[in-house]
Amino acid sequence: MSLVQRSLLGPGPSNPYPEATAALGAPLLGHLDPEFLRILDETCERLRTVWGTANRRTLPLSGTGSIGMEAAFANTVRPGEVVVVAVNGLFGERMCDVAGRYGAEVVRVDHEWGRPVDVDAVLGAHPNPSLVAAVHAETSTGVRGDIGALAAAVHDRDPDALVLADCVTSLAGIEVAIDEWGVDLAYSGTQKCLGVAPGLSPFTISEHGWARRVPKPPTWYLDLGMFGDYVGGNAAGGRTYHHTAPVAMIASLHAALGRILDEGLPQVWQRHREAGERLLEGLAELELVPFAEEGSRLPELTTVWVPDGVDSAQVRGRLLSEYDIEIGAGAGKYAATVWRIGLMGHNARLDRVELLLAALRRILGR
Amino acid sequence: MSLVQRSLLGPGPSNPYPEATAALGAPLLGHLDPEFLRILDETCERLRTVWGTANRRTLPLSGTGSIGMEAAFANTVRPGEVVVVAVNGLFGERMCDVAGRYGAEVVRVDHEWGRPVDVDAVLGAHPNPSLVAAVHAETSTGVRGDIGALAAAVHDRDPDALVLADCVTSLAGIEVAIDEWGVDLAYSGTQKCLGVAPGLSPFTISEHGWARRVPKPPTWYLDLGMFGDYVGGNAAGGRTYHHTAPVAMIASLHAALGRILDEGLPQVWQRHREAGERLLEGLAELELVPFAEEGSRLPELTTVWVPDGVDSAQVRGRLLSEYDIEIGAGAGKYAATVWRIGLMGHNARLDRVELLLAALRRILGR
Repeated sequence: MSLVQRSLLGPGPSNPYPEATAALGAPLLGHLDPEFLRILDETCERLRTVWGTANRRTLPLSGTGSIGMEAAFANTVRPGEVVVVAVNGLFGERMCDVAGRYGAEVVRVDHEWGRPVDVDAVLGAHPNPSLVAAVHAETSTGVRGDIGALAAAVHDRDPDALVLADCVTSLAGIEVAIDEWGVDLAYSGTQKCLGVAPGLSPFTISEHGWARRVPKPPTWYLDLGMFGDYVGGNAAGGRTYHHTAPVAMIASLHAALGRILDEGLPQVWQRHREAGERLLEGLAELELVPFAEEGSRLPELTTVWVPDGVDSAQVRGRLLSEYDIEIGAGAGKYAATVWRIGLMGHNARLDRVELLLAALRRILGR
Repeated sequence: MSLVQRSLLGPGPSNPYPEATAALGAPLLGHLDPEFLRILDETCERLRTVWGTANRRTLPLSGTGSIGMEAAFANTVRPGEVVVVAVNGLFGERMCDVAGRYGAEVVRVDHEWGRPVDVDAVLGAHPNPSLVAAVHAETSTGVRGDIGALAAAVHDRDPDALVLADCVTSLAGIEVAIDEWGVDLAYSGTQKCLGVAPGLSPFTISEHGWARRVPKPPTWYLDLGMFGDYVGGNAAGGRTYHHTAPVAMIASLHAALGRILDEGLPQVWQRHREAGERLLEGLAELELVPFAEEGSRLPELTTVWVPDGVDSAQVRGRLLSEYDIEIGAGAGKYAATVWRIGLMGHNARLDRVELLLAALRRILGR
């Protein structure tokens, strides 16, 4: 058993909330135990609050964040249907790959990485797509997309079109308002701002999305109709066993959500905002230049250019070996030239920021 | 946080090994941290030992047991190919559903539930299937299938045909010998005899299976080529990020495997055998009649008929509320007439057996 203790200040996973870690070690319950089903129901109810939705089908999928992306496309795309994807980073790219595998005719709307989603460009890409997808918080670039504006524009033109949002790095870090925005499908991951180990993908789907879904998707494990009959209950008011739920991870998510809602969602967003602002300020003092465009920067995930003449990997290696601090390399073609710094969930605290800044100052000799 | 403490003596999950629970609470590591990658590599190596294989592609998939079934079919079946499935319980049924979703022409070989796989019947069902699938330990009936005999017969006729075995309830409980038997694909779940919480599906695929796989399967999350480039390393000797691995669950599996191999695999099998034998003996003393056919009974999962005039749900309810003991109802049409009792992993101990027998004796008034 490894007792190496890191400050996980990269693009995720983050260090879990202490409540989440404690719950992982609680006595295990069966997936049909009344006590566990109570925890599961409460988890779904707490997720509704965090998502800002009344969607009945709001549940934790049994895999890490990307399984939410897969479930979203698998359950809604019929072969040949047009899916428009805003691509302004790695996770937009991934959406194109996934949607294509389920037979979608994918229309990519490429943006320069580091820039936010261009609503007009997305809208102009195709006159009547069946689904429009975008990333709310691009983990690869540290950029926030205006999902509310996008969803309004899409539905204004065609109320029947579905809007899908990747909220892996936004949920419980910055405001997410599924119902107010009119988002039909959204997924997240537990290992970012939710402050839980990786292993679950919180997911929500609107009544409209549910009605439009593929009745028997090509995937069994992610068949939302079948899994929903276990999580939310079946038409007869019982629970139909589908697959064994990851009970320990769900208990951990339940505990983290309890912590978040006790603190208060606005207070949690405020804590992320303050930590991110102090980080940007401190990085400027070190003469490091932000990568993401001003006005669209995520407080929970900051990207900066690696200074000229500095070896990115060496700095990250020294942070890890000398200070037990993990930060992330850039994604894709920015692997060697950008750093990604996460202040997510339990790590969205000023002590984490000052620790990192002090270590960076020493290593960079500034 | 729930501190209700159950004895999980149903068809799974089982109570984890203490080492597995302790590791869940260890400080979290990043999925690209050198310390975590060491744990991941060791986990795969330990899995090879437990599977009885040298397969390079032996890894923990990021979902519960059923995700292994899905990955197996998704990565090997091409639309229109013939897949023969031995169906002698719920998980054989499920295989037909999953294989069909990936476009297989499924040939079902139905058996009476409670009976072992009939090798001749499976062989006679189709002259040249591309894949033959069967369940090693049917969790729904408590029956062991002779996978070694089946694989030998299939490969004797056609060395190119793939053999797939569901080992969810057998791995680390009874002998599994992938290479000796000539099995091409197999999957398990962590929440049974491996003694870990649910959340991972250990998976192994032979070089022949790897060569025969679908290059770009319909599923992104379970694309073994992509995930293998992270877990086992890519052709360049590095690691290609695919999805964030469930690091806490993998650390927990790593710890449980360490415990199992420290005890010794033959000793672990022996412990399961002794617990199962004593349970059968004790159930006979209570005049309870086994459901699974003699000679094919699993020591780790025992099925018995509910006695005439006894309300199955009431007995299970009293076991839970009065003794904090969970046992399982029967599966499918045997829901009300069969009980399933698991003695898996850390629960394969005589004290668990005597506790259950004593509680059953009190409740049944025998």
